[in-house]
Amino acid sequence: MIRSARPVFLVLGIMIAALSVAMLVPFWLDAADGNVDSARAFLICALTGTALGGALSLATRGEATNLSARAGFVLTGGSWAVLAVVAAIPLRFAGLELDWTNAFFEAMSGLTTTGATVLTGLDDMPRGVLMWRAILQWIGGIGIIVTAMAVWPLLGVGGMQLFRLESSDNSEKILPRAAEIAAALSVIYLVLTLACAICYGIVGLNTFDAIAHAMTTVATGGYSTRDASLGAFLNEGADLVALVFMLLSALPFVLYLLAARGKPGPLFADPQVRGFFALVIAAVAILTIVLMVTGVHGPEAAWRFAAFNAVSIITGTGYASTDFAVWGPATQAAFFVLMFAGGCAGSTTCSIKIFRYQIALLAIRRYILTLVHPHAIAPMNYGGKAVPDATVYSVLGFLFAFIAVFIISAAILGAMGLDTVTALSGAAATLGNVGPGLGHIIGPAGTFAPLPDAAKWVMTANMLIGRLEVLTVLVFLTPRFWRS
Amino acid sequence: MIRSARPVFLVLGIMIAALSVAMLVPFWLDAADGNVDSARAFLICALTGTALGGALSLATRGEATNLSARAGFVLTGGSWAVLAVVAAIPLRFAGLELDWTNAFFEAMSGLTTTGATVLTGLDDMPRGVLMWRAILQWIGGIGIIVTAMAVWPLLGVGGMQLFRLESSDNSEKILPRAAEIAAALSVIYLVLTLACAICYGIVGLNTFDAIAHAMTTVATGGYSTRDASLGAFLNEGADLVALVFMLLSALPFVLYLLAARGKPGPLFADPQVRGFFALVIAAVAILTIVLMVTGVHGPEAAWRFAAFNAVSIITGTGYASTDFAVWGPATQAAFFVLMFAGGCAGSTTCSIKIFRYQIALLAIRRYILTLVHPHAIAPMNYGGKAVPDATVYSVLGFLFAFIAVFIISAAILGAMGLDTVTALSGAAATLGNVGPGLGHIIGPAGTFAPLPDAAKWVMTANMLIGRLEVLTVLVFLTPRFWRS
Repeated sequence: MIRSARPVFLVLGIMIAALSVAMLVPFWLDAADGNVDSARAFLICALTGTALGGALSLATRGEATNLSARAGFVLTGGSWAVLAVVAAIPLRFAGLELDWTNAFFEAMSGLTTTGATVLTGLDDMPRGVLMWRAILQWIGGIGIIVTAMAVWPLLGVGGMQLFRLESSDNSEKILPRAAEIAAALSVIYLVLTLACAICYGIVGLNTFDAIAHAMTTVATGGYSTRDASLGAFLNEGADLVALVFMLLSALPFVLYLLAARGKPGPLFADPQVRGFFALVIAAVAILTIVLMVTGVHGPEAAWRFAAFNAVSIITGTGYASTDFAVWGPATQAAFFVLMFAGGCAGSTTCSIKIFRYQIALLAIRRYILTLVHPHAIAPMNYGGKAVPDATVYSVLGFLFAFIAVFIISAAILGAMGLDTVTALSGAAATLGNVGPGLGHIIGPAGTFAPLPDAAKWVMTANMLIGRLEVLTVLVFLTPRFWRS
Repeated sequence: MIRSARPVFLVLGIMIAALSVAMLVPFWLDAADGNVDSARAFLICALTGTALGGALSLATRGEATNLSARAGFVLTGGSWAVLAVVAAIPLRFAGLELDWTNAFFEAMSGLTTTGATVLTGLDDMPRGVLMWRAILQWIGGIGIIVTAMAVWPLLGVGGMQLFRLESSDNSEKILPRAAEIAAALSVIYLVLTLACAICYGIVGLNTFDAIAHAMTTVATGGYSTRDASLGAFLNEGADLVALVFMLLSALPFVLYLLAARGKPGPLFADPQVRGFFALVIAAVAILTIVLMVTGVHGPEAAWRFAAFNAVSIITGTGYASTDFAVWGPATQAAFFVLMFAGGCAGSTTCSIKIFRYQIALLAIRRYILTLVHPHAIAPMNYGGKAVPDATVYSVLGFLFAFIAVFIISAAILGAMGLDTVTALSGAAATLGNVGPGLGHIIGPAGTFAPLPDAAKWVMTANMLIGRLEVLTVLVFLTPRFWRS
């Protein structure tokens, strides 16, 4: 155990140090603005965190060894949890009057790119704090892509083995390949973020707002610098920029890598991409019609609001360009269902994701065929590749586990006295890392602040569970995992 | 096709004739009470239906042949739909001012033992109509048991193949075995109903109420002769009788058959029975505590109301001993979740059913084991028998299909303008064949009458889909099914 734990602590130490170094950005902003409290908090945390993280990695450094599957689970699960704690500390002491529960909720919501917030008065908040929230989502976003492409496929979590980049990959060797893929994807991520920031700048956002929103758009995170979210700018150009980059960020980043290497074909032929756009078009069309029929908006505004808010929910970003809670019950159910969608595997989006629905539908179709023709043999194909039974099984297992965690957490929230809409949408929005829920408390115009502490902890746990693809968390709950 | 369709029409004709003969009971009651309108409707329908059904069966009689899997699906799917139409006709013309939409809704709700109603003023309704509703549920109840024991296992629907009574059963031969099992189970069903009626009589219900409620209790249907359901009698003895017989009716009837043949062991050792009681005890305990903590009821009343209403929802009966809508949001979420429970396979209950959760949990556990130890071989056991992978697959497919139909129908209901609670609970209560939903419209104190017609048709479809174990309906939607 000691021997195999060494690389885990090494990587964890590096991550803590890196996150702590990133605190120098908000320190610098708040120092420049004269926000003494938050500047001091960020500086102290940056210095302490860098020292401790650095010490941890130095103490465990040594020859590069490979991680076992078990160590892989510990590293991925542990790093999100530990980094959320590290990220919460400056929020706790930045003079925002957040207690530990709220600071940890906000940090976890940031790192997991959920975007649910307990803060109000964002418009007057120190810029360092706002930037820190954006940085957390931005780091979370690239963390998700790297985990999804370099770790989940090798561990075989929830059908992600479909996305192994090379069939020769071996589950005993994680690190070298991970580092290589991570580097290439990080470049893509950075380029996309810069492009988004420039576009926001062009349509009129100031440099700070443009950068902060670019970071949370590309991460499909949804933290804004304003209480009224992007809607505060009343800038249709900004809405359009957000719409385009939310869509781009929901596609598999590895396809951008292929396109950059001169193979743009897969970007248009990929079944995930096609399924994703089919869903988006259908959802936007239905919502537009509903908004027009119910007379909430005229045709042009209906299309604009429907597209922005549907894509925001489907991709789990959680921006709002208007308070869609006032659109009435006809749209609330649609938004609730869309929380379970998600984008493509290998993007910054979360929730169930398109490919799992596609695999499940293929499996159901095949199963029904065998009901009618018990001896028929129907192979399954996805994106031109055969899908092994173990992968189908893995996808269906994921779906069941996801729904089970949703139902159990919604029931717990209900039992704590939350009303039905808040309990159901709160459980879904946090487990799916979407952000705001529905209803008048946690809807797009509200915050999670008024909820009881216990409910916040349930939701914080949901964010982590959702981000870890549910099954990773269940792995830790098996006694056998802990036996050496 | 003609040749294989013959036995389907034969059985259908017999069923139509039998259902029509049963209309003589409400005719007799209403004739005796002097309710001319409804007596005439029942008599005309009884005579016409018996004649037409009889003619159909005579025209298609001949040597007994066996049904193919395809004919089995057509027969089970078709018979529920056709019988619901036949049952709706007298309701349409009984002077209740029900249009076709409402009459068909009520008839389908009866036959599928759902128990959702569009009628108010039950207390003053002709006794014939009330008895007809009870008869529909009673016939539906035995229909479910027979289908579940003699048809689903052979067709391999949703994991029901676990309950094949003999391993030598062959999916090409359905009828002879079905008739034999049906006869034995019908005797058990009749005995249980008589015992229930006698108990209701002992605690003080009049003969009519005792018989009508016995029929809908044992069928776990939930139609009552009063608007306020069983609560109208303010009779704690009646509540207890209902509680006991709802529990008894949620167990696998084939185990009673074994017990009657001198083998009571399986009744206590069966994993379904144990899982069912574990769920009931946990749900009642949690609800009791919530009711006590929130101060809605004192300890004794809290236990009584919690047990009755939780069991009513878990078994999909749908009786209410009090208007639990006023218990507040803390309990609403719990009731919503319990709608997805159901009892044991081979009982009169519906919804997802206990064994599917047990199989799914076993599958998840095994899957997580293989995540940690990729080369581990973990066989699955359920009730002492090995569970083949195909069965696990079948169960997970069912769960996915069930949840998908729930989400889609809830979204459609929401899009029609129903509020969130009504849309979600209405979809769940009808798909799970539970009965009343949640909220002030379709909750235990309300009815489905105020809903728009389109919503009623969605819910009627849900009742049928739920009763046909979802997958049977999907079978009909595959083009391949219709190719010869």
